[in-house]
Amino acid sequence: MAVPLPAHPRRLLPLSLGLFQGVLLLFFALFVTYDKVSTQTEDANLVVNQLYGIFPLFQDIQVMLVVGLGLLLTFLPHYGLSALTHNFLLLNFSTQWALVLQGLLHHFHHGRLHLDLHNLLTAEFAAVTVLISVGAILGRTSPCQLLIVATCEVPIYLASEWAIVTHLGVLDVGGTITIHVFSCYFGLGVSKGLFGAVQRPVHPKETPTPRSDLLSLVGTLILWVFWPSFVAVLCQPGDAQHRAILNTLLAMSASAVTTVVASSLLESDSKLSPGHLQNGSLAGGVAIGAVANMAVPPVATLALGSLSAMVCVLGFRFLTPLLARKLALQDQCGIHNLHGLPGILGAAASAVAILVASEDNSGSHFSQASPARGNASEVAWGEQGDRGVGGQALCQAAGLAVAIGRSLLTGLLTGAALRLPCLARPPERLCFDDSLYFKIQDRAESPGPGSTAEEGALALKERV
Amino acid sequence: MAVPLPAHPRRLLPLSLGLFQGVLLLFFALFVTYDKVSTQTEDANLVVNQLYGIFPLFQDIQVMLVVGLGLLLTFLPHYGLSALTHNFLLLNFSTQWALVLQGLLHHFHHGRLHLDLHNLLTAEFAAVTVLISVGAILGRTSPCQLLIVATCEVPIYLASEWAIVTHLGVLDVGGTITIHVFSCYFGLGVSKGLFGAVQRPVHPKETPTPRSDLLSLVGTLILWVFWPSFVAVLCQPGDAQHRAILNTLLAMSASAVTTVVASSLLESDSKLSPGHLQNGSLAGGVAIGAVANMAVPPVATLALGSLSAMVCVLGFRFLTPLLARKLALQDQCGIHNLHGLPGILGAAASAVAILVASEDNSGSHFSQASPARGNASEVAWGEQGDRGVGGQALCQAAGLAVAIGRSLLTGLLTGAALRLPCLARPPERLCFDDSLYFKIQDRAESPGPGSTAEEGALALKERV
Amino acid sequence: MAVPLPAHPRRLLPLSLGLFQGVLLLFFALFVTYDKVSTQTEDANLVVNQLYGIFPLFQDIQVMLVVGLGLLLTFLPHYGLSALTHNFLLLNFSTQWALVLQGLLHHFHHGRLHLDLHNLLTAEFAAVTVLISVGAILGRTSPCQLLIVATCEVPIYLASEWAIVTHLGVLDVGGTITIHVFSCYFGLGVSKGLFGAVQRPVHPKETPTPRSDLLSLVGTLILWVFWPSFVAVLCQPGDAQHRAILNTLLAMSASAVTTVVASSLLESDSKLSPGHLQNGSLAGGVAIGAVANMAVPPVATLALGSLSAMVCVLGFRFLTPLLARKLALQDQCGIHNLHGLPGILGAAASAVAILVASEDNSGSHFSQASPARGNASEVAWGEQGDRGVGGQALCQAAGLAVAIGRSLLTGLLTGAALRLPCLARPPERLCFDDSLYFKIQDRAESPGPGSTAEEGALALKERV
Repeated sequence: MAVPLPAHPRRLLPLSLGLFQGVLLLFFALFVTYDKVSTQTEDANLVVNQLYGIFPLFQDIQVMLVVGLGLLLTFLPHYGLSALTHNFLLLNFSTQWALVLQGLLHHFHHGRLHLDLHNLLTAEFAAVTVLISVGAILGRTSPCQLLIVATCEVPIYLASEWAIVTHLGVLDVGGTITIHVFSCYFGLGVSKGLFGAVQRPVHPKETPTPRSDLLSLVGTLILWVFWPSFVAVLCQPGDAQHRAILNTLLAMSASAVTTVVASSLLESDSKLSPGHLQNGSLAGGVAIGAVANMAVPPVATLALGSLSAMVCVLGFRFLTPLLARKLALQDQCGIHNLHGLPGILGAAASAVAILVASEDNSGSHFSQASPARGNASEVAWGEQGDRGVGGQALCQAAGLAVAIGRSLLTGLLTGAALRLPCLARPPERLCFDDSLYFKIQDRAESPGPGSTAEEGALALKERV
Repeated sequence: MAVPLPAHPRRLLPLSLGLFQGVLLLFFALFVTYDKVSTQTEDANLVVNQLYGIFPLFQDIQVMLVVGLGLLLTFLPHYGLSALTHNFLLLNFSTQWALVLQGLLHHFHHGRLHLDLHNLLTAEFAAVTVLISVGAILGRTSPCQLLIVATCEVPIYLASEWAIVTHLGVLDVGGTITIHVFSCYFGLGVSKGLFGAVQRPVHPKETPTPRSDLLSLVGTLILWVFWPSFVAVLCQPGDAQHRAILNTLLAMSASAVTTVVASSLLESDSKLSPGHLQNGSLAGGVAIGAVANMAVPPVATLALGSLSAMVCVLGFRFLTPLLARKLALQDQCGIHNLHGLPGILGAAASAVAILVASEDNSGSHFSQASPARGNASEVAWGEQGDRGVGGQALCQAAGLAVAIGRSLLTGLLTGAALRLPCLARPPERLCFDDSLYFKIQDRAESPGPGSTAEEGALALKERV
Repeated sequence: MAVPLPAHPRRLLPLSLGLFQGVLLLFFALFVTYDKVSTQTEDANLVVNQLYGIFPLFQDIQVMLVVGLGLLLTFLPHYGLSALTHNFLLLNFSTQWALVLQGLLHHFHHGRLHLDLHNLLTAEFAAVTVLISVGAILGRTSPCQLLIVATCEVPIYLASEWAIVTHLGVLDVGGTITIHVFSCYFGLGVSKGLFGAVQRPVHPKETPTPRSDLLSLVGTLILWVFWPSFVAVLCQPGDAQHRAILNTLLAMSASAVTTVVASSLLESDSKLSPGHLQNGSLAGGVAIGAVANMAVPPVATLALGSLSAMVCVLGFRFLTPLLARKLALQDQCGIHNLHGLPGILGAAASAVAILVASEDNSGSHFSQASPARGNASEVAWGEQGDRGVGGQALCQAAGLAVAIGRSLLTGLLTGAALRLPCLARPPERLCFDDSLYFKIQDRAESPGPGSTAEEGALALKERV
């Protein structure tokens, strides 16, 4: 069961990755240093409190990305090790890459990037976009191709985030537009650019088993639990952060219940589809991001959560097969249903919330919303005040359009670049299989009944 | 392997659940709004600090309920997806239901329920009782039946908790009496009311495999790690909370060691039973709840943890089979051994601790115990002081009696209601099987050796 | 498939463990009480803040040890339950034992040990050394033998930690020398002392399957995520703690990427070895401990992380087979590659960092490093200042030598003691098998194809 591939592309991954790590070291030596703030006692206390405030949330997010998302991707029964490992590798690669780019882009005029937990967090958010995007092409791509995606997507995300949040002044504290919508359409673009118009039959190893579905569902539950930390971590401490946590909790709770309803109604025999459950339960968290810190009434939050779960399940049931048939668009994890549709819904909700809040009481609710995500601290509220609520609502729509347009275009280009033969795309028959990338035992690979029975008999004999 | 059920009950779940979600939205619109406290700076700081204090504990509890308890229930090898999903659905359903009821019950005179993390937490505690109770009937009930249990149990719990903590003034910071004892006997009542006097033979799918036991044990370990957060979250910050954490850690550490001892001594061949380990390790956490914030000496805490583990293992070994034989009482997860017996032990320990503390130094230790759980903040310590230590000890006993009596009675009634044919109880031969509720692949359902071998051969052929 | 062992050693575990628990209760009654500090309001506030600061980190560490490390050890496909349970039992046993010893050793002059979260944490660190050491002999030892290892290692660790940190004044905030290097060589000593010069062929149950590798990798990821908490928990709050967190994050991120590079380059076909990934990703965390709170430049941290991952993978590829061949040294989990080699590297790095920092600007960076781990608070910085930077660098080397020397010697003696026949070492053919220690179903034990097919047919028939 040896899998012969030419030696050249096989060596490509370690060599290029090693080279990257070397270049990164150089960049770090030149551009990155530690922050030294706390010379006075008051500052020191501030640092301590900030650390205690942000660090537990940071850890929650790490668990989400490394364990939760990793497990969610193990729904392919023979591709669990690869999914977990590629996710882990991409997270680390992209975070380091984003740190270096941040050092170059944003802090050039200060000489060096002063590293702190906040910087690391924004770099990690850049990495999240990569992790989401590659969901569209999971299982049919080589690690080299994934690294190319990461290399391209991180700078594009940073530019796009700057354009949307800093330049346009879009309010998006939980990353609904900047992270979810952007990465979804980037991923779809990559998929289209890479696979072109070829329709693929279902691969025999593509179908989840109950066991792989179970582990994947555990991943969903971990993501579900820690999602409020992801949305609230960059809010202003105090009321806004408290509200962001509560809103996210309510929206995700509604999503969980509605997913069961929608999946049961749509499937034959009223049975639940594990895939719906794994994704729909999280849809509320995607949608709530853009309005999480605003003072929307709880009933609206619940409704948004329900609606986004419904949209997500409908997407899985009807839209994904339609896109596959009409456009030959491949979306392995259904990122369009989990990140695209609920993200668009959330962006629309944020525009509505802004309009309604201003009608209620001239935006006094709204003024508590803080545009603190990312590097947007320079966007004073005054700016939005000047532009008026109608303007701000338009702004949200413009941000959405920019996110979709840019990401689709750049994604298509990136996908086309992945066609380079040196990147070692695995042949179709070897897809979705750990044994292509991992040194695992043949016996374990196909736990054939014969060998087991034989071994059992031997063992029995030995014991008697 | 199609499982034909009449269409009517199959559609019942999504329709009723959808209806419920709709009604809930209405209630939320009418009764629930956000808290707005922090107009002054000092208040804002207070909010920030409270949030930082309570939020990590809240997340710990979420992990326990969603991931830990969910995994613990996957010990049935063919019912993992259902166990995990039903647990998740019930948690969300019950929490939302409890929020609405809290809005109606406690805060009616204030106009609207001001939602904050504390409210959400007490609603989640109400949901915990449901999650525990349904352990008795796991695997032989339909989701519709489980939702009926939740609908009935949450209001009964809220009333019972009010009676025990607010009215009687029972000290029970960790929910030993109000949550564990109550939900255990409610669950047993439901089981008796539903299944009646029919003795059931062991179902072929009821037996755990090493693999399902392993995943279930991981669930236990997650619960074990985060249990201190569950016990301490509603304590007064400061010494009482610190003590609650330490007491819980010690009690659970003793439980873990004693479980190994007791299980080895009781089983033939001195082998460990995975079931004992999965439950006994947690018994100390159940028992410690009622005394966690009191200044009991560490040795007493350790002894209580050991004793409760012993009682739990003995219960599994002797009491559960006895009850099944004599009373035809079915208790699938052994909730009587994990929540009932250690809960009673903990209640007794709290009475003893109160008596002993008063002898030591006129209750000065004891006065540090704060009755802060739930809505009991109006219970001033003065009240207990007036009633004397003997009175308070009696009180604890009375609370225990109320919890057991009420829950058994209402549980029996609820169980009888579950016999309604429209609730679609699964026929015995289809119990303990995910394929009744989930759309999973036939091939995966029974990974027959033939198909695998054949597929392996085909794959091999294809590769050559 | 019954496994007959004489009754005597079988009863030994529960009886001796029960006895131990009894003795422990006595000790706790005599020596341990709770801390009562907060009589004034200011003190109370301090307690609250300390608690909020340390408790989330404490929980992170609990997750690491109970869930993360437990899962990491489940790479043996038929030994998962045992690995998880033994790890859990040893953690609890050793922590309680360390608490009692701490009460006897350090606090004898104060009358009683005042228990708080900090004490518990240092006791848990003592337990960590046991958990690491037994990795060398995983699967071929009985629980009784493991408990003997714990009983011996905990006091030796406490003495060694006192000698290295308090007496020599070694700087080692993350336990690189005191925990990782010590426990590694202790474990290797035990392995050599126990197994002697006999070379063992590969056991048929020793080989991981993709499924057990997957679960083990999840354990690695959990450890990876929470490692910063482990390193930073005993740092002085403020800048030093912040720096420790950042340094650990960077080092582990570099490790993760470098492990993929190194493993691909070393294995044939450029495939990854799951074992390399499970261990190499964590090597950076081991190495960074001794310098984590110093103000080393980020590039050095990254380089250290990369280097330690490289050393770890090289160790697995070349050194472990060499040691097994030449010295008949058995190291089941490869603790020498994960804890030994990166630990030595980290110790060397700390010496270099001290020398370089002093050249840079007369140690002003360095003075921010606090020797706060363990009971070292009495070591004022002045002492190191008096001894000069060269002296301090030498000190680090001396600490390393002491850790290696002591642990090897005492480990060999402990290993020899484990040869006592009453400790019930399992015979080779029964090693690596849960059924020796757990009451599990025969059917499940060897899920033979015949039985499954038969059952499937029966089930089918029943349904029709």
